[in-house]
Amino acid sequence: MIRLYVSQELAEDAQFAVSPEQAHYLTNVMRLSVGDELLLFNGRDGEWRSRVAQVGKRACLLEPLIRTQAQAIGLDLDLIVALVKRARLETIVEKAAELGARRVRLAITERTNAERTNVERLTAIATEAAEQTGRLDVPEIVPPEKLDRMIADWPADRPLMFCDEAGDAAPALAALAGRTQGPWAVLIGPEGGFSPRERALIRSAAGAVPVSLGPRILRADTAAIAALALWQAALGDWRGT
Amino acid sequence: MIRLYVSQELAEDAQFAVSPEQAHYLTNVMRLSVGDELLLFNGRDGEWRSRVAQVGKRACLLEPLIRTQAQAIGLDLDLIVALVKRARLETIVEKAAELGARRVRLAITERTNAERTNVERLTAIATEAAEQTGRLDVPEIVPPEKLDRMIADWPADRPLMFCDEAGDAAPALAALAGRTQGPWAVLIGPEGGFSPRERALIRSAAGAVPVSLGPRILRADTAAIAALALWQAALGDWRGT
Repeated sequence: MIRLYVSQELAEDAQFAVSPEQAHYLTNVMRLSVGDELLLFNGRDGEWRSRVAQVGKRACLLEPLIRTQAQAIGLDLDLIVALVKRARLETIVEKAAELGARRVRLAITERTNAERTNVERLTAIATEAAEQTGRLDVPEIVPPEKLDRMIADWPADRPLMFCDEAGDAAPALAALAGRTQGPWAVLIGPEGGFSPRERALIRSAAGAVPVSLGPRILRADTAAIAALALWQAALGDWRGT
Repeated sequence: MIRLYVSQELAEDAQFAVSPEQAHYLTNVMRLSVGDELLLFNGRDGEWRSRVAQVGKRACLLEPLIRTQAQAIGLDLDLIVALVKRARLETIVEKAAELGARRVRLAITERTNAERTNVERLTAIATEAAEQTGRLDVPEIVPPEKLDRMIADWPADRPLMFCDEAGDAAPALAALAGRTQGPWAVLIGPEGGFSPRERALIRSAAGAVPVSLGPRILRADTAAIAALALWQAALGDWRGT
């Protein structure tokens, strides 16, 4: 069944018209017609089994029928990723949504090749991934910030899992053992790594938890997926209920 | 420094001509000339700092200078992945190389959309990823086999980490706790999952270790990367020395 993120309120009998883009997608691409059912979520009202109530030339009315899931929100996990080439950054955003990150923050580092970043496009990728993966919210994409500033403002109550390829960091699971849930962040560097000055700065941040991801050199997207998976498995919602 | 996989013997003073494709890459694309250095490995003789000894019109002679790493081979880890769409399969092969799999076996399942598989191209992707990630061997790409046959022939001494999204499997780290190194395999299903019959068959295999990768639906590439990372962190060479 199609699963769609919408911005409108979801409640019983609260019919609403979707955007023209979504109307095009539902009626022309997916060829839904009146009476067909789909799942809707908006990040606030849970997930609703809904039906197509009316189809017009460039419009489509949807009607929520019954709530299938109460609203829930994942753990408070940020992924901070240095700006990398567009294709890899888009992969990282897709995977962050699947792996339950609540926010993706983009970091400008010394070795960043700052291509222009299209936050709107990244948000669309995050939205589509959220629809597919079954979550009830969409990760927020935060526009690029300077790494130095992020670290200078780092909140002491948010541990920072720093994937440190250059150093003597502890193996990831050992470094996470005995830690607790709560606000966390995972930090992935650019291809080519952080500069020595940046590494020292990050390690000096309150709450920095340097971890190693093994002996091989990893692409930024590989490192991001691996680190998020390890965090979820060790501390997050992959531990089971 | 450029790092290149070659098939020739690597030994002191053992000059050799690379293939025309590699000669083109080294001299035209990377613009190396006589005296420039690069790293070579062949999966047998370790890694060698080497130099360009001669450049001809369509040829290039290389000369190993000194061995920089003794030959080592990663752990005996197979990734078995259902045939998925080409772009995702290529991503999976690249990541399997970075994450230290020794072999990638391609499985034909009930829900496989069997596009034609280009094993030669996948091997080229694995080779390039091995060059970049710093390993001393290239993962073998095994041509597609029927899943049923693989499971029927399953060796009892190779535990099978079965990423089972449909069921009641234990959380991955709990399922791997207390297990030991040795031959292992990780099995990832097609998008859409294994059929109920296939799930029962896999679970009946000697050594099957069903694991859960959390509450969200994962794309096949995400699941493969996450599972390999968890295996390396729990049992493999990410545990540190």
